[in-house]
Amino acid sequence: MEATLSEERVWERRREFLALNPAGNTPVLLEENVFAIPGADVIAEYLDETRGLVLGDRRLLPEAPAPRIEVRRLTDWFNRKFYEEVSHYLVAEKVHKRFLPMDAGGGAPEGAILRAARANVRYHLKYVGHLLGQRNWLAGDTLSYADLAAAAHFSVVDYLGDVPWSEDEMAKQWYARVKSRPSFRPILTDRLLGMNPSQHYADLDF
Amino acid sequence: MEATLSEERVWERRREFLALNPAGNTPVLLEENVFAIPGADVIAEYLDETRGLVLGDRRLLPEAPAPRIEVRRLTDWFNRKFYEEVSHYLVAEKVHKRFLPMDAGGGAPEGAILRAARANVRYHLKYVGHLLGQRNWLAGDTLSYADLAAAAHFSVVDYLGDVPWSEDEMAKQWYARVKSRPSFRPILTDRLLGMNPSQHYADLDF
Repeated sequence: MEATLSEERVWERRREFLALNPAGNTPVLLEENVFAIPGADVIAEYLDETRGLVLGDRRLLPEAPAPRIEVRRLTDWFNRKFYEEVSHYLVAEKVHKRFLPMDAGGGAPEGAILRAARANVRYHLKYVGHLLGQRNWLAGDTLSYADLAAAAHFSVVDYLGDVPWSEDEMAKQWYARVKSRPSFRPILTDRLLGMNPSQHYADLDF
Repeated sequence: MEATLSEERVWERRREFLALNPAGNTPVLLEENVFAIPGADVIAEYLDETRGLVLGDRRLLPEAPAPRIEVRRLTDWFNRKFYEEVSHYLVAEKVHKRFLPMDAGGGAPEGAILRAARANVRYHLKYVGHLLGQRNWLAGDTLSYADLAAAAHFSVVDYLGDVPWSEDEMAKQWYARVKSRPSFRPILTDRLLGMNPSQHYADLDF
């Protein structure tokens, strides 16, 4: 599926955007003749229910109850737990504070917060390695939403140069496999204006 | 369905509990011959997929794509947004701080945080009233997971006496309807040891 991306500056709280998603956050998927679909989880469930059934073993949410629990558990792990413990802190400290005016919370990153987030990422990296000691992909034998959620969050932290890949070979190999997929290419070419990614960010052999 | 509740002191991080849910939080549903099902959202999807299909129009997650989006959007609204803006603050300040030793973060509630949470609850109450101006239940014409998530969070805040019901008649009538349901009774008889609920907490006419 092709999608057209458009940037939304959520802090501006545009009326038209709030009409699409009263919660005021991204992502929101717009599709013709369907009302707006807000939130990564809701979008994933919607896409699976409207497009997933025909994908067979390439479906991103498997069919049996137990594997579905595992995919949803791990998707939530990265979209919530990893975000709250790692990516949210690093983005707030290194990106938001850099671009915000001083009187709106801008300024230098706080060392203690960066240290905490960097300690947390090591624990998540180890957990990824642990899972991959038992399975081919994060939630089972096939690629699932759990891999996409995890790779999306790791890519943000990797852009900032804060993933110590050398600490877990299994996790590193998994991320190299995700990176090599055509669907991941646009993420690797994405650039934040005025802030270059880490040297190895888009490198398939890192 | 009948379930047996058991208390888990998540801060003790019991090994047996972490084996069931490595994220270490509640709720976790245990069912014979199925592995542990962690998290309110994952449990809800699982119960719908394994028990919901036979419920017809009493199903808590409707069948068509658009109503499913709305139920999930609003379930997430209360489990995440309301929790982060209201119930999490009030519980932390009024309950956790009361029972924790001083050296573990216990003490008197912080006035500024209580004021912020109480301002936020008014906005959520108004949003509930707004939705009920258009529909019979929060996400549509039938009771859904959105109503259960919302009522669960409101009941916590109502226990603490912090829902200004008189400000929105529609929201109040909706909560009275949910309160009257047999499935809600155990919540209304639940008591926190050493801390009584607000006077009207279990009252069906409040």
